[in-house]
Amino acid sequence: MTTVREASFELFRNRRMTTIFGNPGSTELPMLGPLPDDFRYVLGLQEAVAVGMADGFAQASGNVTHVNLHTAPGVGNGVGAIFNARANRAPLLVTAGQQARSLITMQANLTNRDAIEVPKPYVKYSYEPPRAVDVPFALAQAIHNATLPPAGPAFVSIPMDDWLREIEPVDYETQIARSVGGRTQPDAEQVSALAKRLREAERPVFVAGPDVDASGGWDAAVELAESQRLPVWAAPPTNGSRIGFPEDHPFFQGLLPPAVAPLAQTLAGHDLVLVAGSSVFPYYPNIPGDFLPEGAELIAITCDPDEAARAPMGDAIVADVGLTLRALVDELSGASERDEPPARAELEPLEPGEQLSGGEVHAVLAELFPQDGIVVLESPSSTAALRNQLRLSRPGSYYFSASGGLGFGLSAAVGVQLAQPERQVVCVLGEGSAQYAITAFWTAAAYDVPVKFLVLRNGEYSILKWFAMLEDVSGVPALDLPALDVAATAQSYGVPSRSIAASELGAATEELHAALADALAQDGPRLVQVDVAPGMALV
Amino acid sequence: MTTVREASFELFRNRRMTTIFGNPGSTELPMLGPLPDDFRYVLGLQEAVAVGMADGFAQASGNVTHVNLHTAPGVGNGVGAIFNARANRAPLLVTAGQQARSLITMQANLTNRDAIEVPKPYVKYSYEPPRAVDVPFALAQAIHNATLPPAGPAFVSIPMDDWLREIEPVDYETQIARSVGGRTQPDAEQVSALAKRLREAERPVFVAGPDVDASGGWDAAVELAESQRLPVWAAPPTNGSRIGFPEDHPFFQGLLPPAVAPLAQTLAGHDLVLVAGSSVFPYYPNIPGDFLPEGAELIAITCDPDEAARAPMGDAIVADVGLTLRALVDELSGASERDEPPARAELEPLEPGEQLSGGEVHAVLAELFPQDGIVVLESPSSTAALRNQLRLSRPGSYYFSASGGLGFGLSAAVGVQLAQPERQVVCVLGEGSAQYAITAFWTAAAYDVPVKFLVLRNGEYSILKWFAMLEDVSGVPALDLPALDVAATAQSYGVPSRSIAASELGAATEELHAALADALAQDGPRLVQVDVAPGMALV
Repeated sequence: MTTVREASFELFRNRRMTTIFGNPGSTELPMLGPLPDDFRYVLGLQEAVAVGMADGFAQASGNVTHVNLHTAPGVGNGVGAIFNARANRAPLLVTAGQQARSLITMQANLTNRDAIEVPKPYVKYSYEPPRAVDVPFALAQAIHNATLPPAGPAFVSIPMDDWLREIEPVDYETQIARSVGGRTQPDAEQVSALAKRLREAERPVFVAGPDVDASGGWDAAVELAESQRLPVWAAPPTNGSRIGFPEDHPFFQGLLPPAVAPLAQTLAGHDLVLVAGSSVFPYYPNIPGDFLPEGAELIAITCDPDEAARAPMGDAIVADVGLTLRALVDELSGASERDEPPARAELEPLEPGEQLSGGEVHAVLAELFPQDGIVVLESPSSTAALRNQLRLSRPGSYYFSASGGLGFGLSAAVGVQLAQPERQVVCVLGEGSAQYAITAFWTAAAYDVPVKFLVLRNGEYSILKWFAMLEDVSGVPALDLPALDVAATAQSYGVPSRSIAASELGAATEELHAALADALAQDGPRLVQVDVAPGMALV
Repeated sequence: MTTVREASFELFRNRRMTTIFGNPGSTELPMLGPLPDDFRYVLGLQEAVAVGMADGFAQASGNVTHVNLHTAPGVGNGVGAIFNARANRAPLLVTAGQQARSLITMQANLTNRDAIEVPKPYVKYSYEPPRAVDVPFALAQAIHNATLPPAGPAFVSIPMDDWLREIEPVDYETQIARSVGGRTQPDAEQVSALAKRLREAERPVFVAGPDVDASGGWDAAVELAESQRLPVWAAPPTNGSRIGFPEDHPFFQGLLPPAVAPLAQTLAGHDLVLVAGSSVFPYYPNIPGDFLPEGAELIAITCDPDEAARAPMGDAIVADVGLTLRALVDELSGASERDEPPARAELEPLEPGEQLSGGEVHAVLAELFPQDGIVVLESPSSTAALRNQLRLSRPGSYYFSASGGLGFGLSAAVGVQLAQPERQVVCVLGEGSAQYAITAFWTAAAYDVPVKFLVLRNGEYSILKWFAMLEDVSGVPALDLPALDVAATAQSYGVPSRSIAASELGAATEELHAALADALAQDGPRLVQVDVAPGMALV
């Protein structure tokens, strides 16, 4: 006879889900032991870290990824990271242990009383099977739901006494063998209508969002821009979880600003805005104005029906972004006679101050950045500076939290590196944002995951001071972060770390260059912390 | 004119809620700045820490306590700690920022789309006011709900542009002036029936739970036990968030085991089990059997209707625990002629091994423990040993996570110490459990909160190995925790720390004694980490 456990692990194996992230409690033990030899378990010391690592792994591997949490309190600690994963469209199977069925009704200790309610708003499927024999079927449904577009997390709560129950083939064989695919192309009429609008537009512009990368649409996006001679903007960095267009391309114009009025002003003069793989738009902060410049129309391509429905303006096509871009390129068949777009406006040059700026740090990083490197970014005050200095130009080179939630960067970097062992991951953090998932350093050290961490320390929540200024709010407490020393903390978790103190500018640059070069040359995880000037680093 | 913000702070002031715990984001800035001079803000670097600190502060101050979180991702990180607070019956006002009203419908970045849904299962009230002018009224309702028995967290989501809206007196004056009280006594008939059953019982036994302490019923519990000559057990430590009876009292028998069969066996021979202020019972792990010994009846006194309803056996009286015990003592008026209960069975003596055991560590702690000290405990493998060695004997001396969730101990200790500056807090942690809220060390250091931390390092998740043995599960991955060094991590956050390595037994005891004595003699936070033998420490 087969057990629920055996059938479930066969399902995981079939779906290449042999890496399990998690933080265990007593209610998970019957699932975890003994772990089959072809599986590996990656421990996070807190659930936000386990989910964040799985999120990075799922995005960078393109495969649905399993994260296993402890009953109610464990799931609770992971909810913020599940919210991030939803925004990032990371296909996750989130499982959690539950009290034994015989003890649930009396609400014995560790009963997850409302197991499916808490994660429900942030997952695509939330379920607790009514019988042990339904567990493999529920897991299969969760996996299908997680992977169908738009991808996202799905949750299953599993009573701990279910795993060893015996199960008949009828309860699992056909259910776990099913293959379910959801990539779609728009119908031919929509494609030709879109091609017509684009052909007839006089001054069209292209906005490339994160889902261009996730959908494998990078090459089609470049072909479209080149053949149609489109200036290209990156979607606002606020939810730019991935990069959808090479940022060193001559047609690339920069990052759209995230607030309503400045965004429309940036697009002034265009008559058609074609958006691919981004919400329209991840606005913030609140600077009201017209949504589009005078005379402009907008068409968005998205795989997400909700994203299409909730946009305040413009038309939308719901289908796979990469396939739609490819169909559009094929339909247009041939180059436009428009002029090539003007070159991107020169960035303001870095103006040396008394201390290193975020831009100067990223200029040093750009000098050393490996050709095939990957950035995982969570340094809110220097997001724009990094994008501007690094000009990342390859698919799958950039991961960022689309939700605005912190804690993703440090943990996701570990997951991305595990999924992409051949590419060097550089994780760029602020010393404040590092704190939301700080124990991921332990996993990096314990599993010898060779992420290189670069921490910009400015002694404050810079972006909040900047927002306070924008919002005209004064006297907010606790925006300074004295005495945070991420290098010392990472070292305490076993990551060899260096700290470069504020010092004479040229010396600091040289020291940073040497330290980063040395870190990149080493096996295993390394960390470099560098003191930078307070405030926002936009270039 | 008054603003929403002014009316709300007046409400907080009236309720003595002038300490605000939190972790800010952009959506909270309009609430926080400028902070009035008579308020203090205590920063947690991650939301689980902010909520955990507020939980400890609320329990130790007895006052509803405000914790302010960032919109969806911030609330998400705090859900596990909110779950703990619900189990701990901590009266919390949890507020969170929300996107500006004009940007919510389009789901702009940082919109908390399902703001009230996620925390709902774990809070007593979850609300987002439909208009700015309703904010103070909603906050008042949340405060009333949080404090009415059983106390617990209540949640309000507040759009960030609400705070500066002008508001008329009719919208806040009467609402925030209301006083709402919910402590109740059982009716006289119930009290006299209970007294009769107790008087007529031949071998009654008393089980004191956490709510005896929270309800101020300590003295009444002692009087009841003494006048009725009742042997007294502590409720199972699994959810013993507080101690309800002096553990050095001659009538005290020890801690009830938490599983069904052993618990009933422990109570064998009694004909009436009187339970005060505990669920019946926080069972775990799953060892099935009869709920009560042959011939025994059970009566539970609880302030929680749900706790009364869900017990699988026995009768229940729903009313304030302290007031009910007092009424019962008064009704009984005078001493029983029963024999005094037998003295507690001698604990097995500590058997020296090659390494210090948890029990030996707690024996050293007991020698040094300040008369008026407070323990905040999260060392799952040595919970029983601490209770057995310390024999805490004063009200408000012990805080523990009633939910079974980790992360409470380290953060709550900071909150308890802030609420009780005159009493020394000793926070006892495992090196694994410390990781769930590790950044609370920063708050202890930055705010100079003089908690003394004692970390027992055994290199493993001992309690999970123990559960795996009980559940007959082998081969569970990741139950060893090599190379965790909480002393180094705490030091990196600014808490002066010492580590006592595994060494010859007598020397380690002496070194621990000296280090603990030194830590207790210092101002400010201090940490002592001591290596102990792996495995569970039950005595």
